Amino acid sequence: MQQDRPAHKDHADTDRLAMGRDFQRIRRFSEQLCEPLVIEDYGLQTVPEASPPKWHLAHVTWFYETFLLRPFLPDYPVFHPRFEYLFNSYYEQTGTGFWPRSERGLLSRPTVSEVYDYRHHVDDAMERLIATCPSDVWPKVQMRLGIGLNHEQQHQELLVTDIKRHFAHNPLRPAYRADLPVAPIASPAPLTWTQFDAELIELGAGPEGFAYDNERPCHRVFLEPFSIADRPVTNGEYLDFIADGGYRNSAFWLSDGWATIRREGWSCPLYWEGQADATPDDWRIMTLGGMRPLNPAEPVCHLSYYEADAFATWAGKRLPTEAEWERAASDRPIAGNFVDDAWLHPRPAEKTDGLRQLFGDVWEWTGSAYLPYPGYRAPAGALGEYNGKFMCNQMVLRGGSCATSRDHARLSYRNFFYPHERWQFKGFRLAETVQ
Amino acid sequence: MQQDRPAHKDHADTDRLAMGRDFQRIRRFSEQLCEPLVIEDYGLQTVPEASPPKWHLAHVTWFYETFLLRPFLPDYPVFHPRFEYLFNSYYEQTGTGFWPRSERGLLSRPTVSEVYDYRHHVDDAMERLIATCPSDVWPKVQMRLGIGLNHEQQHQELLVTDIKRHFAHNPLRPAYRADLPVAPIASPAPLTWTQFDAELIELGAGPEGFAYDNERPCHRVFLEPFSIADRPVTNGEYLDFIADGGYRNSAFWLSDGWATIRREGWSCPLYWEGQADATPDDWRIMTLGGMRPLNPAEPVCHLSYYEADAFATWAGKRLPTEAEWERAASDRPIAGNFVDDAWLHPRPAEKTDGLRQLFGDVWEWTGSAYLPYPGYRAPAGALGEYNGKFMCNQMVLRGGSCATSRDHARLSYRNFFYPHERWQFKGFRLAETVQ
Amino acid sequence: MQQDRPAHKDHADTDRLAMGRDFQRIRRFSEQLCEPLVIEDYGLQTVPEASPPKWHLAHVTWFYETFLLRPFLPDYPVFHPRFEYLFNSYYEQTGTGFWPRSERGLLSRPTVSEVYDYRHHVDDAMERLIATCPSDVWPKVQMRLGIGLNHEQQHQELLVTDIKRHFAHNPLRPAYRADLPVAPIASPAPLTWTQFDAELIELGAGPEGFAYDNERPCHRVFLEPFSIADRPVTNGEYLDFIADGGYRNSAFWLSDGWATIRREGWSCPLYWEGQADATPDDWRIMTLGGMRPLNPAEPVCHLSYYEADAFATWAGKRLPTEAEWERAASDRPIAGNFVDDAWLHPRPAEKTDGLRQLFGDVWEWTGSAYLPYPGYRAPAGALGEYNGKFMCNQMVLRGGSCATSRDHARLSYRNFFYPHERWQFKGFRLAETVQ
Amino acid sequence: MQQDRPAHKDHADTDRLAMGRDFQRIRRFSEQLCEPLVIEDYGLQTVPEASPPKWHLAHVTWFYETFLLRPFLPDYPVFHPRFEYLFNSYYEQTGTGFWPRSERGLLSRPTVSEVYDYRHHVDDAMERLIATCPSDVWPKVQMRLGIGLNHEQQHQELLVTDIKRHFAHNPLRPAYRADLPVAPIASPAPLTWTQFDAELIELGAGPEGFAYDNERPCHRVFLEPFSIADRPVTNGEYLDFIADGGYRNSAFWLSDGWATIRREGWSCPLYWEGQADATPDDWRIMTLGGMRPLNPAEPVCHLSYYEADAFATWAGKRLPTEAEWERAASDRPIAGNFVDDAWLHPRPAEKTDGLRQLFGDVWEWTGSAYLPYPGYRAPAGALGEYNGKFMCNQMVLRGGSCATSRDHARLSYRNFFYPHERWQFKGFRLAETVQ
Repeated sequence: MQQDRPAHKDHADTDRLAMGRDFQRIRRFSEQLCEPLVIEDYGLQTVPEASPPKWHLAHVTWFYETFLLRPFLPDYPVFHPRFEYLFNSYYEQTGTGFWPRSERGLLSRPTVSEVYDYRHHVDDAMERLIATCPSDVWPKVQMRLGIGLNHEQQHQELLVTDIKRHFAHNPLRPAYRADLPVAPIASPAPLTWTQFDAELIELGAGPEGFAYDNERPCHRVFLEPFSIADRPVTNGEYLDFIADGGYRNSAFWLSDGWATIRREGWSCPLYWEGQADATPDDWRIMTLGGMRPLNPAEPVCHLSYYEADAFATWAGKRLPTEAEWERAASDRPIAGNFVDDAWLHPRPAEKTDGLRQLFGDVWEWTGSAYLPYPGYRAPAGALGEYNGKFMCNQMVLRGGSCATSRDHARLSYRNFFYPHERWQFKGFRLAETVQ
Repeated sequence: MQQDRPAHKDHADTDRLAMGRDFQRIRRFSEQLCEPLVIEDYGLQTVPEASPPKWHLAHVTWFYETFLLRPFLPDYPVFHPRFEYLFNSYYEQTGTGFWPRSERGLLSRPTVSEVYDYRHHVDDAMERLIATCPSDVWPKVQMRLGIGLNHEQQHQELLVTDIKRHFAHNPLRPAYRADLPVAPIASPAPLTWTQFDAELIELGAGPEGFAYDNERPCHRVFLEPFSIADRPVTNGEYLDFIADGGYRNSAFWLSDGWATIRREGWSCPLYWEGQADATPDDWRIMTLGGMRPLNPAEPVCHLSYYEADAFATWAGKRLPTEAEWERAASDRPIAGNFVDDAWLHPRPAEKTDGLRQLFGDVWEWTGSAYLPYPGYRAPAGALGEYNGKFMCNQMVLRGGSCATSRDHARLSYRNFFYPHERWQFKGFRLAETVQ
Repeated sequence: MQQDRPAHKDHADTDRLAMGRDFQRIRRFSEQLCEPLVIEDYGLQTVPEASPPKWHLAHVTWFYETFLLRPFLPDYPVFHPRFEYLFNSYYEQTGTGFWPRSERGLLSRPTVSEVYDYRHHVDDAMERLIATCPSDVWPKVQMRLGIGLNHEQQHQELLVTDIKRHFAHNPLRPAYRADLPVAPIASPAPLTWTQFDAELIELGAGPEGFAYDNERPCHRVFLEPFSIADRPVTNGEYLDFIADGGYRNSAFWLSDGWATIRREGWSCPLYWEGQADATPDDWRIMTLGGMRPLNPAEPVCHLSYYEADAFATWAGKRLPTEAEWERAASDRPIAGNFVDDAWLHPRPAEKTDGLRQLFGDVWEWTGSAYLPYPGYRAPAGALGEYNGKFMCNQMVLRGGSCATSRDHARLSYRNFFYPHERWQFKGFRLAETVQ
Repeated sequence: MQQDRPAHKDHADTDRLAMGRDFQRIRRFSEQLCEPLVIEDYGLQTVPEASPPKWHLAHVTWFYETFLLRPFLPDYPVFHPRFEYLFNSYYEQTGTGFWPRSERGLLSRPTVSEVYDYRHHVDDAMERLIATCPSDVWPKVQMRLGIGLNHEQQHQELLVTDIKRHFAHNPLRPAYRADLPVAPIASPAPLTWTQFDAELIELGAGPEGFAYDNERPCHRVFLEPFSIADRPVTNGEYLDFIADGGYRNSAFWLSDGWATIRREGWSCPLYWEGQADATPDDWRIMTLGGMRPLNPAEPVCHLSYYEADAFATWAGKRLPTEAEWERAASDRPIAGNFVDDAWLHPRPAEKTDGLRQLFGDVWEWTGSAYLPYPGYRAPAGALGEYNGKFMCNQMVLRGGSCATSRDHARLSYRNFFYPHERWQFKGFRLAETVQ
């Protein structure tokens, strides 16, 4: 019995060391992502839903300060009394209120330099907390730190997608990085299908390991037989939809989708530039490397749920449910084109057989609404607002994108966005019911 | 073999006779519902989502003209060439366009009298079609007529709910009918629960009998064990939620719900009049019989999905899924307080044991998003727009209300509305996962 | 000296008799204007600025009840306690508040019949007041009655223009009266000019006779020499402006005007139907007699200040100031095409020489902002809100229109509207500075 | 005769030298105004009407490039081909279009450093143009350069007022300059009046010297006798208006003003912070030096026309017309608290007798709409858009402010803003008609 305790202690220390290393690595990566920016870029907010880089850098820092340092680090000196108001995102239960989301770009102060000071102040304190917090407190710290690190990784993805959004708004179309690799123009790999039989599956994350609350509890779901496409829909296939009058024929569209494309004047995915009657060679797209010719072999990206659904209707197929997607992906490795690979753009599918590109490249819209799993209960307090309060009016996306960190992706991961939102790296794959 | 043909013929004739009688009965009922109106009432549209009575009377008539008389009755003389534009609701594929929904109240012409003429013109032609259409055409006519009659019954419910909406907007608070019965003020029956084990059920309508396309195909769904409340939540229980600061505490609310109640300034269900700090006796509600004191024993009614969900969160419960609701209701008779009973208001639950009020009284919000069943395919053509194109952003309601026709209610019936909409007779019942 | 008093008494009685006759005549005329309407028409409000006929009938009645019967007729029984809330237009100082202007069309009750009952109730009481009020009260009653009758005449003009607005919104384009006379299609009379020398004039109404407060005090204004066109600009001349790209060339437009025509998509005056590249013969216009071919000889009508100003800029001229207009009109008879003539549409100018059509046909936009005359002071109390509080952001129009009563027109009359408003019978005449 | 030419040449050279010095001085001053900024401040646009400092620096530079260098300097190399699109403000007739005004803050590129490069590129070219342009071209260059320098001075004032607007939006309330002088708290000087007799005056700029087109032609205006206050209304006097319920009583307000303060929730001038029921000592105001206590002796500032008019109504007075203001100011020196004095805030009136503070401190709202003077004609081409197209819906302000350059102020200067706009240094002085 006695030996257990040192062993346990060792294990806890290893956890601390590992988490401390993760903390340093993830914190550093946020700043690395900002290295290509000039100071003027840090404050930009061109649309309400995409925040300024400076805000992301400060907000993820506020998270540690609020949920870890204030409650758990004795004598922690708060960096600035107003930052809890300026850099809270939406947590109502912290009681401090928050600066309006749509006005995050209207603050020149604190300066970029002051925000970096804030980060380093919190970094130092966090390392102290990880090293010194009593072992009875550590499990709670560990749990919250896990959320905090995943949270920062989510904001790293937003950093990338928001910078793309802001730069695309500028008529000069500046490049975020001029040195990104580019895939050769090619035609898409042929579309093949994998079939699954009727089956009672388990959906969601089991009790071990890190997962967000919304991935739990694991529960049983019955699937009728279905087929799923082996790779996402490509730009080339999507061009066929456009050429066939896809954006002009209401028969393909959900009612809210049709209203949206008419109100917004959409006739192609976000970041495409061309005319409805352009030939494929005429289309150009804005990327993080600047303007490029459209590559038909790449997964189509930056489209709304409405566009994904309309394409599927046009093609006589449908989107997979999240349960079908998770079943199909359940025996695949979590491999693919992630932010770690630094392409920052989806890549063409390899010309091999079988299910691929489930992870990385593009988030895949599913046909499932974002709702609680049976038995879900949001945690108490402000952290309970992290996921639960958004379980209405949004659709689930699965798999991760070229802007996601590889170690952030999970089989059970549920991303969610409103059906009209397009600025993330979002694509889709087709499915159909086997009857 | 020979006997078959006359028998078949007889059977078809009986169908025709029966449907002819249904047609007359249902057509007559629309006009009966309008008898308490004065001419000025027929044109009212106080909110974009609630149409004028005159428009409902004409639109249901347009449906027969468009989908039955024009295609199937030779030499049918169209009543007025512009009515297909004025009284189409949302069918894009008819190719005629339609007068904007939000402007239906801006047309004084055609007059009420002309709309009744239109109805009678179409009635005469429909009776001719039912009596005379060739037997090879009859199955298609029969199928579309089934939709047309269900469609008119849906608009009868809307007639009732829209009239209530329009009259409640008038500061004089006029009564639609001063002679309606009123339940005595009482306290609610105690809340009891029925439990269901884990089970693989069949959800949706089978191949026989009339059902909308969205109720099919019948398919298998696995249910984890759950409990469901034996009756809907009452006004009295909802008053406790209000008194406990329900509308002031963000912790109970979905994010979109919290934004909605703050933007709209809601602090109680629609049609309640009182103050946040009123005692129960001070609350009054607008009904189709005019203003009345609030009855704590009645099912709470006219609330949004957000309010139903917030109450459930406050109560530590949740809403049932539509599969759970259908399982619970599957062995119950379709009995309850329908429009046929002419209360036009939900009634208190009887003080008996066991599951009750599943049908009639109030539509019940479920926790299920309105999405296609696996294998669903919308029919081709404009009639395919009836249900399928709304499968996004809306939530399912089940069971029917005091404004629904008894013979319109079905176990598999899927009603759907946006989560913020309140003007239907909508309530909810609680459920919970058994763990 | 003694004889004076009976004489004075006689004079007062004559006043009472005359005003009583005016009261009856003017009240009757409001109802005559509504005779062509069906009940459904009375409640229409197709745009926020144009009220339903029923509202006009009730509001002018409320004016007498509020400002005459309640204060001056002992024991006057108010017709309905909520009507002061429902039918007040904008008088904040009555303390009762008012039903929102944009929602006047959302009230089916009181019914048309009840509104007529209200009118007759107030008519009876007014006749009693006129006949019986003590002679020391009479001057105040007489003054307010003068305002009340002019007020009702203004609303008679609005009745006509609002009915036109509402009927033009209906795609059936119903005629208000099918029996109106129509001028033959013709070409415009040639445009000639009258010149005035520099002069110090007196502007505004003198102390005698009825005038609104905003026409006083009479004061001195110095005019530099100017020329003014002998008749308003015609449809034919306006067609030349359109054909010359008038609506496509920003150089002609005020900044707010250019923004307005682009936001609203205007490419012709209100009620014109045709294409920008139509030949003159292709244009049709909506009138109170239904759709008609455009008559080039008629004064152009239903345009905004922005369009009048843009035409003048295009033509190298300008609009007259209100002082110039009043100087030019000061020795002309108040004669022209008024509502009394029952054309209800502007008529072509006679082919004679000299200044004409100053009164009637179309209100004429001037280049003067609606501001107080030097020494103006609004009366105390709610009646002081009649004119004074609108003295900002509006432009002055002069002369009266084919929808104005002849005995309502005055040389000093100042009408005023926002520069973007078009639904009145508004045209303009050109002027220029002589240098 | 011959001697004339050298003399003439000398004179022209002197002009060139003087204008060259003015050019250098004014260009330098724009950059001096930006010295207290950090890079993050340069891109801010917190409200659509207030532009980012970076935009101002580039736009005034674009003006010289567009109207002087491109047409008149042979072989001038345009700095960047897209800058004419990015930095045009509103000139439609240049044919290049312009980046939307409300999105000027959404451009991180060009960077601040690139904008300074642009300035210096243009400065160099302008000095070359001034030195070398042929004498037959010089008069045109001289005229446009006069406009360009006045234009830059206007934007210098906007730089100051826009920076104040942006900084006040930040909840940290940063100071633009912490070293500004502050007047001691004091009570206002007594209000005295100066009377003027009826008189025919000449209004506007004569043919000599620089003036904008809208100040011409000089013309005759007759003034009825009037009195005008010797100094502007003070904070202390305005506090009395607030304390007397000024913002709660509709009787004081123009209709559009009442609607504005209710829609916007205004209960005090812009930049005041306090409660409606605060004591004078509780009020604080945001200044370019940061937050300060309110000084009752200072001219009230940053209010709308509606508030100025409401105060005047409450006080039983009115605003002066621009003709009255110009008459009153016509024999006063152009002296006062200008931007050159570097207070950047209005100062209390000196406790002396007689008319004062007509120039500097605060722009003074007049009761005159901004309209063309008789005989006004906008110049041809894009420069004709400078003033003329704004002659609708705006009100005239006179005199200049603490953010105006001393050598930019003129007796005949007509500033103009929409009645609801408050972010300039605007106050007012009272007047009344003598009867």
